[in-house]
Amino acid sequence: MSPAVLRHLLEFLGVIAFALSGFIEAERKQVDPVGVFVVAFVTAFGGGTLRDVLLDRRPFYWVEHEVYVLILFALTAVAPMVLRLLHKHFLFWFFILADAVGLGIFSVAGTVMALAAGLPVFSSTMLGVVTGVFGGVLRDVILNEVPMVLRDGRPYATAAFAGCLAYPGLVRAGVGEATALWVAALSIVVLRMVAWHRDWHIGYRRR
Amino acid sequence: MSPAVLRHLLEFLGVIAFALSGFIEAERKQVDPVGVFVVAFVTAFGGGTLRDVLLDRRPFYWVEHEVYVLILFALTAVAPMVLRLLHKHFLFWFFILADAVGLGIFSVAGTVMALAAGLPVFSSTMLGVVTGVFGGVLRDVILNEVPMVLRDGRPYATAAFAGCLAYPGLVRAGVGEATALWVAALSIVVLRMVAWHRDWHIGYRRR
Amino acid sequence: MSPAVLRHLLEFLGVIAFALSGFIEAERKQVDPVGVFVVAFVTAFGGGTLRDVLLDRRPFYWVEHEVYVLILFALTAVAPMVLRLLHKHFLFWFFILADAVGLGIFSVAGTVMALAAGLPVFSSTMLGVVTGVFGGVLRDVILNEVPMVLRDGRPYATAAFAGCLAYPGLVRAGVGEATALWVAALSIVVLRMVAWHRDWHIGYRRR
Repeated sequence: MSPAVLRHLLEFLGVIAFALSGFIEAERKQVDPVGVFVVAFVTAFGGGTLRDVLLDRRPFYWVEHEVYVLILFALTAVAPMVLRLLHKHFLFWFFILADAVGLGIFSVAGTVMALAAGLPVFSSTMLGVVTGVFGGVLRDVILNEVPMVLRDGRPYATAAFAGCLAYPGLVRAGVGEATALWVAALSIVVLRMVAWHRDWHIGYRRR
Repeated sequence: MSPAVLRHLLEFLGVIAFALSGFIEAERKQVDPVGVFVVAFVTAFGGGTLRDVLLDRRPFYWVEHEVYVLILFALTAVAPMVLRLLHKHFLFWFFILADAVGLGIFSVAGTVMALAAGLPVFSSTMLGVVTGVFGGVLRDVILNEVPMVLRDGRPYATAAFAGCLAYPGLVRAGVGEATALWVAALSIVVLRMVAWHRDWHIGYRRR
Repeated sequence: MSPAVLRHLLEFLGVIAFALSGFIEAERKQVDPVGVFVVAFVTAFGGGTLRDVLLDRRPFYWVEHEVYVLILFALTAVAPMVLRLLHKHFLFWFFILADAVGLGIFSVAGTVMALAAGLPVFSSTMLGVVTGVFGGVLRDVILNEVPMVLRDGRPYATAAFAGCLAYPGLVRAGVGEATALWVAALSIVVLRMVAWHRDWHIGYRRR
């Protein structure tokens, strides 16, 4: 598989992963099918759209890849059926995993694009984290909840931050850009999942 | 009346309609007069501003038409008096109608602008829907509610989507652009009002 | 002190003031440290970022001054300790003061930039108010509350509006731009604090 094809595949996976996390949350709040689509759409494309607005890039990802929006349309029709097939506890894990995969892919991709746009390393890292977490923040805000990223106490944005900072480090250390991208993204997914599984907490001493 | 004058008149009607829906919701939540103005402002101009940011257009509609903002200012002072004059049940219908008129006008106008900016048909339709619904979403989010568009189960975004998709269809079928615009916008208003009146629901089988 | 140094100092004070108001609100809602940082970040930089998006300016303030973001990082680690040192009632006053200082500085700075970008006077005033209040709106929305600016009934956005309108008036009256900026910003802070202390209310007759 050529790197370009692999990249498209991974990006597609990120979109689907975030959309799934949107479907699951929307179902939990019992919104109507239009709401399910909107929540999935903003979760999947919100981070990338904010990134493109901040970097002044056009066209947007979802304009360039219209077919992804059509796939979300189709998935919306079958979403409740698919979700019902999954066991409840398993569904929660699946939500965490889908979210972690989206987080890893979009955070590092955001950092890569910010560096390519000439932003300094630290700002590029911040912008990568914003790209990764903003879709989920939008999802939670429009469903009228305090965003998960602010309250769950487990490394989430922190995992994204570590991976986004690792990318320029790896590149500077002589690792190829494509390899560095996947290593950084995968490390975010693994870090997030391990932190979740082991119930690591970041917290002030007060609690 | 020349088409340009008609267009300005309709746009103005859309702004006032959305502002009214903002006044009604803000009153219901008992915010202060500044809050009433802010809610009316974001409801009336939020969708168009997001559209202009996404399409990278400047100046914004509310910068170009400062007088509309001044009219909102003036209306804010008398809003509670006007609302009190209307009977309660009638007020609710008026809210739905005002919202439908704003939705129809801004959705189709958003689609027209996106097509003019060179976006493909499906993305232009999506952008039109976003333009039409985003003001109401902002209104509900800042008033700390789950946006109406996600939860009422009646065709709202769906009506906007149908009308926005109809516009390029009508143009391709040979209908003049101005005529197509008004037919599409009117069909959204009618579709939304009929759907509300007849209590049509879009829903998954589960409910 | 040269005017440029003074301006940087004041801007820095505005950032810290808004960040503090973010820390205080985040603590009240008991979010985790990542949440504390995010809330402080969006409160401090949200208004300026929206301003730059609306005026199509790049790079963003927080990209140009990366060190401020690093300072927020550092402050996040010690925030709960610092806040605990302050007495509870005093803390509330401090929150109101920090917020007023941020409001004054950012509102007038936003108006100055909008005028420099060629916007008309009234729109520039509106944009200044948006710059000043949007950080606080974001802070409250992501913490799942109705924004303070909509509900407290005391002059807040109104104070910002008066100061932002005073700036071009002072300049037209022959006052130097730097002087006009500081007079306008200070008048917002004073107006806000007096209004708070005296419990002035803007309200419809109904209440």
